[in-house]
Amino acid sequence: MPSDGATRTQGAPQTGRRSTTVNPRAAHLAMALHCVAEQSGEISRAGISAATGLNRSTACSLIEELIDGGLVREVRDTGTTTRVKAGRPGTGLGLRDDGPAGLGIDVNVDYTAVCVVDLTGKVRYKHVVSEDQRGQGTREVLDRIARLARGAQNAAEDDGLILCGSAVAVPGIVDRRGATVTLAPNLGWHDLDVAEVLPADVHGERATLDNEANFAALSEQDLIRDGASYLYVSGQIGVGSGIVLDGRLYRGAHGWSGEIGHLTIDRDGPECPCGRRGCLERYAGHEAILRAAGVTAGAGTMLGVRPTAELIAGRAAAGDPATLAALARAGQVLGFALAGCLNLLDVGTIVLGGIYRDLAPWIGPEVEREVRAAFLGARWAQPEVRAAAYGAEAPALGAARSVVRDVINDPMRWLAR
Amino acid sequence: MPSDGATRTQGAPQTGRRSTTVNPRAAHLAMALHCVAEQSGEISRAGISAATGLNRSTACSLIEELIDGGLVREVRDTGTTTRVKAGRPGTGLGLRDDGPAGLGIDVNVDYTAVCVVDLTGKVRYKHVVSEDQRGQGTREVLDRIARLARGAQNAAEDDGLILCGSAVAVPGIVDRRGATVTLAPNLGWHDLDVAEVLPADVHGERATLDNEANFAALSEQDLIRDGASYLYVSGQIGVGSGIVLDGRLYRGAHGWSGEIGHLTIDRDGPECPCGRRGCLERYAGHEAILRAAGVTAGAGTMLGVRPTAELIAGRAAAGDPATLAALARAGQVLGFALAGCLNLLDVGTIVLGGIYRDLAPWIGPEVEREVRAAFLGARWAQPEVRAAAYGAEAPALGAARSVVRDVINDPMRWLAR
Repeated sequence: MPSDGATRTQGAPQTGRRSTTVNPRAAHLAMALHCVAEQSGEISRAGISAATGLNRSTACSLIEELIDGGLVREVRDTGTTTRVKAGRPGTGLGLRDDGPAGLGIDVNVDYTAVCVVDLTGKVRYKHVVSEDQRGQGTREVLDRIARLARGAQNAAEDDGLILCGSAVAVPGIVDRRGATVTLAPNLGWHDLDVAEVLPADVHGERATLDNEANFAALSEQDLIRDGASYLYVSGQIGVGSGIVLDGRLYRGAHGWSGEIGHLTIDRDGPECPCGRRGCLERYAGHEAILRAAGVTAGAGTMLGVRPTAELIAGRAAAGDPATLAALARAGQVLGFALAGCLNLLDVGTIVLGGIYRDLAPWIGPEVEREVRAAFLGARWAQPEVRAAAYGAEAPALGAARSVVRDVINDPMRWLAR
Repeated sequence: MPSDGATRTQGAPQTGRRSTTVNPRAAHLAMALHCVAEQSGEISRAGISAATGLNRSTACSLIEELIDGGLVREVRDTGTTTRVKAGRPGTGLGLRDDGPAGLGIDVNVDYTAVCVVDLTGKVRYKHVVSEDQRGQGTREVLDRIARLARGAQNAAEDDGLILCGSAVAVPGIVDRRGATVTLAPNLGWHDLDVAEVLPADVHGERATLDNEANFAALSEQDLIRDGASYLYVSGQIGVGSGIVLDGRLYRGAHGWSGEIGHLTIDRDGPECPCGRRGCLERYAGHEAILRAAGVTAGAGTMLGVRPTAELIAGRAAAGDPATLAALARAGQVLGFALAGCLNLLDVGTIVLGGIYRDLAPWIGPEVEREVRAAFLGARWAQPEVRAAAYGAEAPALGAARSVVRDVINDPMRWLAR
């Protein structure tokens, strides 16, 4: 594993000190395309000139290049175009939905999901195969991924889209460059190059890998558009999180940020497979909730994570006391851990994803109460606790969106292909 | 207190989504000045053209503007100039050390410090007044700050520098915009506009405020130059931290990031003035170490934070068993809390600042041991634990450097003054 300290961020142009090596034309193309992408309505050429500070002729030439390259389209004025002054409206501009598309793949313990999104972030294809992959050989799982990827590619092409890249979400830790799965214990994978098995014709370039919580965090497109800072908590067999700061995923020095599942709740608590005691997962993970609710762990393992969450939610909705008590306790412990995260990170929002999304009606209020009691800034501002916008499809969707986001962040690379 | 979610970062150009509103000339000037600032030796015009991707004539025109504006100087070739090709070397370029300068002020509980740095980050003036400010009126403390600021300004002008701004570090929380002290309990301040008392002629514009740990974190200039991600832990009466990600200070959605002093170590632990129990400060704060070492808390209060750290370090160096045990315990608890922070943030380095810098020979190894036992990535990479580069002067120095850093990030603003 490489040990140098660089950090990859997603969801915005490579900036900061790295901006000193950016080609100016490429940077201007990205600025113009960002303007088009981040408008709620359409924007005119004059609007782009005003928003970027680029002069009118430069803005027009950039837009021509983006139109010729199949990224931007002209639209009839719908009344929402940003007008710079009264009079004849400029021609509106919008992202094309028949150009480049991103393929997202989510390899989970008991299902594999694929999805294709167009440049606007809209889902154009999705497919999920449920199958417990824990007992299977790596080859078998990788072949399934390749098969699903080919199916998605065919569907995308039939729909007039061009797959420009792919991204794979895995339940484990991934190296800093997003190239290799370092460790995915529930799949039995270590130091595995998943991208290598995806046929080269599935995507223009090598697939990018990341932890499922990181990609799931990127499915919250509205928060990202607002440039928000939030912690996306993903309840799965383990408990992970994705940290988004100012609309950009923060992956950490090695790509391992957000590992909240092993935050210590009680040093004298129950043993954890990680070798320590009293980790968050032992109180608020999937198995712990099942056990506390009186469902045998075996049933959970048989059912898989998602059906189990539905089972638990059903019991809670029916008012089962043991289930309600189990969820209240899980919410309290989760909220206690998240309050510490908030005191460190001071993000404005906590998003409950994975199984916590299904269980949010019962877990959410407890999380909110704990967070408000322990967050030092609570006197002045209350962090928002909300359920995720998407459920099981979030990692694949976020992965696919990360691919098209890369095009918006660096259109030159797409244009030069 | 404003509640919108924007985040101010320091130490690099405003980038990401905000880049869409940047004036291109301003952005190019910043790119060129960054090139000059981040070279270890000097760089030629051709070197800047190569590093930025800007064409030669644009690079030359930018450099002329930076030279005319008093930010960059030409230097005789010292052999370290980056040569693009063999033959006649280009004229080397470096930052001017007789141009704009930044004023940093640190208002602590028992001392006030001021310092002036030039554009290269070098300290050109410093002055510290020790005085316990807890019993004093706000007016009295503010008048002292203004007096010290004027003294620093006079010294800077005598030295041929032009103060271009000031920044004030406070032991408390500051609002998101860095304009008002929301709460500094040990000074008895709340909702106080410190910048207002600084006479307008001390600096070109309003002073920026921030928490002392945040500014202290910015004193680690070498780490920032490398674009490193690190957690700067500041042991004072309380325990705070500054989070630097990819060389930029991360302040959080409200400006309250890094509040690690009240991370819960033990929910059944000793009561904390914050209203909860078992907070980190109750084990690893200044008073807790004194008490555990058998020094009465009163002595610590009388002496102040800094002399107390020296007293404790002296006892430890002399082998006093109670002191050694107190430091080992504080280091263990601090390391335990920091391991959780590392699992969340995955930064490569922990910097021990404030009193922990003086106590690093005893606390550091314990922190390192705990972190290595609990950091999930420890199998593949060990985070570095190191003592801070500066002691008591760190907050004032980091504050002053943040001012000149703002000039490097946005030279257009300086040039247009």
